[in-house]
Amino acid sequence: MSQKFTIAIDAMGGDYGPSVIIPAAANALKKMEGAQFQIFGNERVISPILNQHPDLKKNALIDHTDIVVSGTDKPSAALRGGKNSSMWNAIKAVKEGKADGVVSAGNTGALMAMSKMMLRCLPGINRPAIASVFPTVQGKTVMLDLGANLVCDAEVLTQFAVLGAVYARVVQNIGAPSVGLLNVGTEEMKGHEELRAAAAILANVEFPGKYYGFIEGNDITKGTVDVVVTDGFTGNVALKTAEGVGKMSKHFLTDAFKSSPLAMLGYLLSRGAINRMKDKVDGRKYNGGMFLGLNGIAVKSHGHSDALGTENAILVAYDLIRNGFNQRVADEIEQLMSQESFVSAVGV
Amino acid sequence: MSQKFTIAIDAMGGDYGPSVIIPAAANALKKMEGAQFQIFGNERVISPILNQHPDLKKNALIDHTDIVVSGTDKPSAALRGGKNSSMWNAIKAVKEGKADGVVSAGNTGALMAMSKMMLRCLPGINRPAIASVFPTVQGKTVMLDLGANLVCDAEVLTQFAVLGAVYARVVQNIGAPSVGLLNVGTEEMKGHEELRAAAAILANVEFPGKYYGFIEGNDITKGTVDVVVTDGFTGNVALKTAEGVGKMSKHFLTDAFKSSPLAMLGYLLSRGAINRMKDKVDGRKYNGGMFLGLNGIAVKSHGHSDALGTENAILVAYDLIRNGFNQRVADEIEQLMSQESFVSAVGV
Repeated sequence: MSQKFTIAIDAMGGDYGPSVIIPAAANALKKMEGAQFQIFGNERVISPILNQHPDLKKNALIDHTDIVVSGTDKPSAALRGGKNSSMWNAIKAVKEGKADGVVSAGNTGALMAMSKMMLRCLPGINRPAIASVFPTVQGKTVMLDLGANLVCDAEVLTQFAVLGAVYARVVQNIGAPSVGLLNVGTEEMKGHEELRAAAAILANVEFPGKYYGFIEGNDITKGTVDVVVTDGFTGNVALKTAEGVGKMSKHFLTDAFKSSPLAMLGYLLSRGAINRMKDKVDGRKYNGGMFLGLNGIAVKSHGHSDALGTENAILVAYDLIRNGFNQRVADEIEQLMSQESFVSAVGV
Repeated sequence: MSQKFTIAIDAMGGDYGPSVIIPAAANALKKMEGAQFQIFGNERVISPILNQHPDLKKNALIDHTDIVVSGTDKPSAALRGGKNSSMWNAIKAVKEGKADGVVSAGNTGALMAMSKMMLRCLPGINRPAIASVFPTVQGKTVMLDLGANLVCDAEVLTQFAVLGAVYARVVQNIGAPSVGLLNVGTEEMKGHEELRAAAAILANVEFPGKYYGFIEGNDITKGTVDVVVTDGFTGNVALKTAEGVGKMSKHFLTDAFKSSPLAMLGYLLSRGAINRMKDKVDGRKYNGGMFLGLNGIAVKSHGHSDALGTENAILVAYDLIRNGFNQRVADEIEQLMSQESFVSAVGV
């Protein structure tokens, strides 16, 4: 008997709502063995779109609500007013064990606040992190935290290292993933006290990765490590700075090709190769901010995502679920907490 | 009578020493009216190179020393053992008024430590910042701090805003430069307490720029503001992350053009336009980390810089000197400190 995985979808989030999310789910379903959906939101809007996707319809239930969390609501307001919203109900399905994970393209702050409140952290995890996968010169790297916790102490950074390393192992199949702490230099005495304390812990405990040491901003895309660990403030600025530079490069390249008839002809000849390059760094293929460390899988899809990006976010959730990510984290955290070198360092 | 500007050059810093720095100074001299050099370092190495540049030789004195600060020395070790080194003596020339500014491609930490110790901060400035200019989609932006101070309080961030705004006005001729504080979101309640406190000060004081508000990482290259203010930890990570993404884009583009004979032909046709694009973001044209806020001009050239990059760093120092940057900062800081809204906010 094959296992069934249920993914709860908040169909009302993001810039395009069900018109993008339903087709995305239909495409994702083709790649997800044994998966089914619970779709939360306005049935009158969802139904006609779902009718156009008979395979999805066979594997999906609609859970109606009129309430929607707005993209501009503060997290606190969303917690107060967003009860029984599509986002709320989708998370609740995970909490109640009716779904194995939730995907939403809605308000990030609200999604994190509701997920924290309803799902709570896994035992031994103090704070959930937002993680995402990025292209590097050599392949891919996973980075966390991207904005859930602006300030992180050494214990939290160590937990993030475990979350990232487990992800690299169970989802990316990297046997002994290398883990780096993002800093302003690679020498031992560099950086904040929390970073130095986290480095001291990671160098002395057994955890599912290999501690590499401090890395710098340019190491992220160099692919120096498999897992980049940082506080949410730094991670968020680095992520958005990287996005900005990527956009600028694209902008200048387009300008260059448009600058003369000869350059335009050059573009036409190299278009195939250029498109393969663009494909390699296509943000949609990396869409899906994973909320790691919670008692349930939650994935945030970018608000501007089209169907391809949204499909990817759904597949990210599916990968976490079918690989038993949370169970493995729970085991590894228990392992970590049983080590004398960890206990004495964090003063539990 | 035209004014003479003297630039002290640490000829022994960087990966290539005098073999790159002397030709760079010779090229820079052609663009610097009324400038002369004092060159610090090993005369036996410098002299033969200087002899190949007769125009520079006429406008340069060599100040010999055998002592060199190594690129790997910790700042504290450099302060202890680096007395009378080429770096030390070049900074001392500025301190003693024999030179108007110093340029070095040596050890950044040592250069900052010695500059702080010998030059000290301008009155009213608590900490110097490292600033640099970056290309944006729209033009250029100046960003600080890039690594001198890992943690910055609201008062220091406000001083950085003044330093950046004065730079944009006097060197870049921007009448009312916009100043943004780098944060993880643009809403008022976002970010660290220090950032929110700095925002409250900047919104309420008169200073040589217009306070724009919070900006995010992607705003740097978007050119949203003329001046980006941040703490040195965040600034350093953002800078190096941006460099890494730039390199990755270049790497993938080169790969794409090499991937097939057709793509290669396309490259040959569009080469002129592609090179103009590369020129636009050429790091050498942006080389020159300015140590702002000190009682004297000090500019750090990148250790790997070639002659073009080094020349640019020298021109950066020259621009600060001839535009009377420091005098203007002193005036503006005095102005700032006389304002009730500033005094009450920082509790002087």
